Amino acid sequence: MLGIAVLGAGRIGKIHAANAATNKRSRLVAVADPVDAAAAALAAEWGAAPLADPIAAIERADVDAIVIGTPTPTHVELMLHAAKLGKAVLCEKPVDLDLARADMAAKEIGRLGARVMVAFNRRFDPSARQLRKAIDDGEIGDVRQVVITSRDPGLAPRDYLRSSGGIFRDMTIHDFDMARWFLGEEPVEVSAVGSRLVDPTLDELDDYDTVMVQMKTASGKQCHINCCREAVYGYDQRFEIYGARGMVMNENLRPSTIRRWSSTATEVREPLLNFFLERYADAYRLELDAFIDAVVDGQPMPVTVHDGRQALRLADCAVESAATGRAVAV
Amino acid sequence: MLGIAVLGAGRIGKIHAANAATNKRSRLVAVADPVDAAAAALAAEWGAAPLADPIAAIERADVDAIVIGTPTPTHVELMLHAAKLGKAVLCEKPVDLDLARADMAAKEIGRLGARVMVAFNRRFDPSARQLRKAIDDGEIGDVRQVVITSRDPGLAPRDYLRSSGGIFRDMTIHDFDMARWFLGEEPVEVSAVGSRLVDPTLDELDDYDTVMVQMKTASGKQCHINCCREAVYGYDQRFEIYGARGMVMNENLRPSTIRRWSSTATEVREPLLNFFLERYADAYRLELDAFIDAVVDGQPMPVTVHDGRQALRLADCAVESAATGRAVAV
Amino acid sequence: MLGIAVLGAGRIGKIHAANAATNKRSRLVAVADPVDAAAAALAAEWGAAPLADPIAAIERADVDAIVIGTPTPTHVELMLHAAKLGKAVLCEKPVDLDLARADMAAKEIGRLGARVMVAFNRRFDPSARQLRKAIDDGEIGDVRQVVITSRDPGLAPRDYLRSSGGIFRDMTIHDFDMARWFLGEEPVEVSAVGSRLVDPTLDELDDYDTVMVQMKTASGKQCHINCCREAVYGYDQRFEIYGARGMVMNENLRPSTIRRWSSTATEVREPLLNFFLERYADAYRLELDAFIDAVVDGQPMPVTVHDGRQALRLADCAVESAATGRAVAV
Amino acid sequence: MLGIAVLGAGRIGKIHAANAATNKRSRLVAVADPVDAAAAALAAEWGAAPLADPIAAIERADVDAIVIGTPTPTHVELMLHAAKLGKAVLCEKPVDLDLARADMAAKEIGRLGARVMVAFNRRFDPSARQLRKAIDDGEIGDVRQVVITSRDPGLAPRDYLRSSGGIFRDMTIHDFDMARWFLGEEPVEVSAVGSRLVDPTLDELDDYDTVMVQMKTASGKQCHINCCREAVYGYDQRFEIYGARGMVMNENLRPSTIRRWSSTATEVREPLLNFFLERYADAYRLELDAFIDAVVDGQPMPVTVHDGRQALRLADCAVESAATGRAVAV
Repeated sequence: MLGIAVLGAGRIGKIHAANAATNKRSRLVAVADPVDAAAAALAAEWGAAPLADPIAAIERADVDAIVIGTPTPTHVELMLHAAKLGKAVLCEKPVDLDLARADMAAKEIGRLGARVMVAFNRRFDPSARQLRKAIDDGEIGDVRQVVITSRDPGLAPRDYLRSSGGIFRDMTIHDFDMARWFLGEEPVEVSAVGSRLVDPTLDELDDYDTVMVQMKTASGKQCHINCCREAVYGYDQRFEIYGARGMVMNENLRPSTIRRWSSTATEVREPLLNFFLERYADAYRLELDAFIDAVVDGQPMPVTVHDGRQALRLADCAVESAATGRAVAV
Repeated sequence: MLGIAVLGAGRIGKIHAANAATNKRSRLVAVADPVDAAAAALAAEWGAAPLADPIAAIERADVDAIVIGTPTPTHVELMLHAAKLGKAVLCEKPVDLDLARADMAAKEIGRLGARVMVAFNRRFDPSARQLRKAIDDGEIGDVRQVVITSRDPGLAPRDYLRSSGGIFRDMTIHDFDMARWFLGEEPVEVSAVGSRLVDPTLDELDDYDTVMVQMKTASGKQCHINCCREAVYGYDQRFEIYGARGMVMNENLRPSTIRRWSSTATEVREPLLNFFLERYADAYRLELDAFIDAVVDGQPMPVTVHDGRQALRLADCAVESAATGRAVAV
Repeated sequence: MLGIAVLGAGRIGKIHAANAATNKRSRLVAVADPVDAAAAALAAEWGAAPLADPIAAIERADVDAIVIGTPTPTHVELMLHAAKLGKAVLCEKPVDLDLARADMAAKEIGRLGARVMVAFNRRFDPSARQLRKAIDDGEIGDVRQVVITSRDPGLAPRDYLRSSGGIFRDMTIHDFDMARWFLGEEPVEVSAVGSRLVDPTLDELDDYDTVMVQMKTASGKQCHINCCREAVYGYDQRFEIYGARGMVMNENLRPSTIRRWSSTATEVREPLLNFFLERYADAYRLELDAFIDAVVDGQPMPVTVHDGRQALRLADCAVESAATGRAVAV
Repeated sequence: MLGIAVLGAGRIGKIHAANAATNKRSRLVAVADPVDAAAAALAAEWGAAPLADPIAAIERADVDAIVIGTPTPTHVELMLHAAKLGKAVLCEKPVDLDLARADMAAKEIGRLGARVMVAFNRRFDPSARQLRKAIDDGEIGDVRQVVITSRDPGLAPRDYLRSSGGIFRDMTIHDFDMARWFLGEEPVEVSAVGSRLVDPTLDELDDYDTVMVQMKTASGKQCHINCCREAVYGYDQRFEIYGARGMVMNENLRPSTIRRWSSTATEVREPLLNFFLERYADAYRLELDAFIDAVVDGQPMPVTVHDGRQALRLADCAVESAATGRAVAV
């Protein structure tokens, strides 16, 4: 049984804690959070030890692996501390908001031969995996165009946005990762446009709420991403992958399959499943399963710090492109 | 060019007149209706001759074929008159409300070797034809169960209902025909239930507005039909054909393909295309095309008076079953 | 914490055991099965005590409630034994294959004031609940017609079928329960037809593999059910509820939402989620939750032995109707 | 009755001729094509006069309006000739491949006060009109993002491509027009990428077969377009319009509504309706209806030469952007 410590008892930490506690190959050993009550409550729920200090949690003898769900600026330090002690790490995205620091972390992890996985949960969504499998099986031939729709149900609080690194590094970063995963090639050119259509005062943060990104790879594969911080109809998560021999796409999830017919409308479906914790509940569980399996079985990490670094690099290119109106070479 | 006279300038006559006038192998020669203004208006629209007397229209030398869209009690007389003169006939359903009289007509037509087609338009709907073709192509293996949904958008006027022959002979008769067509075998047993859930005063007419029918064939194939005289969401026309190796179904038609997403609902489609003249516009045209082709090319009639008689017989069984609560042998 | 014993360590017992062990208001205390290895394995998985004798499990002091997942002939005896000891019972359907015995059980339970729930899991499916809620909320007005499609992926083994009580009492019984639940009224008349289209040798068992049922209530509401023991495209579970002001329906579940487009087909979806344990996994969990909540909170049982008895009565009527070709008064 | 001459008896000329001949407010007077047999055949079909010389057709006294379906280089000359004679013009897109020449034409037409409509048929598609109406009705609030998918079923012949002006001016031009129509604002910035994924030898023509375009308006509205010259699943035409209060989208058309279920797949739909003449048959008819109504009723032209010019300008920007890798200001 792999002993796991979860660092950070916020909403994402709770998800990982529950999954660590119920996975048959792991047990939840400790929960660390500087807010004592938060650590205590989450630890109590699953019979784990509460700690205030994440470093202490990492250093516990019964901890084999850690899950980092703390604020972004702490990621690299915690990751490297665990890596040096030979402990496996699952780290929430982004690795860091600063590309140089992410690069340094990747280099150090490489040097140490450490086991670190970056938590791009969407890769583990069952429908996303079916899409990737269809590509791998050659069903659609060579991929030509990837179209990604990614809209949040509502604008996050100002404080969250202020320290988020901006929409490209905070939100679109997931889509950059999925783009790389579906394209199967690195984008070499990024063009982005950004607008403030939800909240014009976001100019104070030098941020956008509505963006589009266009990318191409060296072989000419193309990708479009659209993101918005607010969609009244819910959390919109769609992928369309179009290839030489066919196309595959997924559909959003809803709480049930009811369809309504009335005098004014037919085939009416429910609003979409909100929000990422519900929509991607299976993905979070399968992500941790994959992490645990890789650690226990000594297999390669399914998503690496290099992947985290590459997505961040694309986000940086998008920031620059949206500001300059020029396509940016990656 | 086949010279066609349309008897009856009502809504169904108008459809047939337009189709006869624009088919490349026919021309509309005459329109007959006892209401002079109706005959005149429809004839003028297509450059045909208006007549009051349907017999006179049948007897015109330039009339090769007639389309009967007059009230049901006149069908047999007009059909036989045309048949005796060697003219081809497309007759609206039902042949007659009286089975004995329909039998007599079928027999006489057989004796004369006359060319008479009964207008079960739904067989010519492009989607229905694809369903039938899928069966013929062996796609779904042996048919096991046929499920037919057939609901009108709103209750017809009292006067119409009074002379309609009742829901089974007027409305469900279309579904009986489709059941026979899809089953590929004659039903041998009919069970029906009837209710008055839309208008309780229909008991005055000894009629129902909401019915279900269950039938089986000698080899054990099964069919369910549900009908209602009123559906607030529009004209509901669905077929599901389930077989040993698969299933095929069709979908209702709508004016456009728009789908709406809002804060309360997603994938919202429009109400259904109303009513039979719009929903089955293609079917009416293709039906007349098939009639004209059969007449001009000397091919067998695609739907016969025998088909009309069989559907009426099933309707009679359903009337008896709904009244007695007993399955009726056909 | 409610102490639960699961009687029967077969596939259904495993489901209930897992749900009992992970519900926050209960704990799994014991698992009883005459096959020692089966009891031992399931008990070990959840840290419960294994027993061979179900009576011993019922009588344990730490057992407050039992879940009966043993063969049908044992249901009544176990149910009554627990009831007499004041223990709550969740019993798999059917209560018994013999209506008189089911009636006796219902009467005795009433006399004892015992807490017994019958496990009609489909009532707890999230989509089915949304349909029922739409009715309760008055969304579709008075219910007029209920159409139920219920097809298994493949014929059960001969031995299972031999002791199943026949398709109506074994398989359609679920649909009879859903019909009652959606209609909100008791059916008063049942017509059924049965065929052997999958396996003609079922005549040896005096059983059918393909059936249709038609029912109406005193107020004239109508219900159609179709069942088949084999559907090549998977486990087909659909409800359509049509009312005076609208219609609601559900859709089948699939493993993912992928849709495929190729040169020969578009919008291709996966085969359906198989089989009842997967398709109704949520329903089984929510069913046990509802049972536990009702027991712990002292609320009425959400599904009663009377419900089990009524569904069995409808099945008996269907057996008679299919054999005699006559509608049977309930 | 408006007397119409159709110039060009190719596939698009045939469509317009049939629509002109059957519209109740117009008659087809003449068909002009330098290929005598083509002019003769099409004219004979509808009882019109065949001519070799388009100028002669324009100058006929019984010709009130012309439809230009000739090769692109002739458009401006024919349009202006007709305009000078006071005749109304419906001209196929593009106005010209040279923006300066299109500008000259627009200016001259303005000076003459002539009635000229450019044939962007997709604006008249019933579903596209419902999308536009939903925007106009305020259903989705302010438009934020428009996503346009536009893929042809197969690569056009080399000769066609050679004189097409390239994918942006030939194919994407329709999408540029729809983008402007749905956005309700002029794009001010265009970024495009182009690849040769279908046929690498298109570099000989300095053309692409697979492109993406990204645009924004002055107020920050965004638009993505993707185009490909080949899609194995058929002619793919989708619009998604996402706004502050909701979203609307359309769906592709298919020959029928059949859905197939088998052991390997469910809900299988047919390939898409091919190609533009079939897919947009209604749109072509409604376009000509709108042209005729505008001419006869003296109303403004629904699509103007300015619209044609603006779409061409966006295409030119895309050409430049794809070549330079820079966003181009419009």
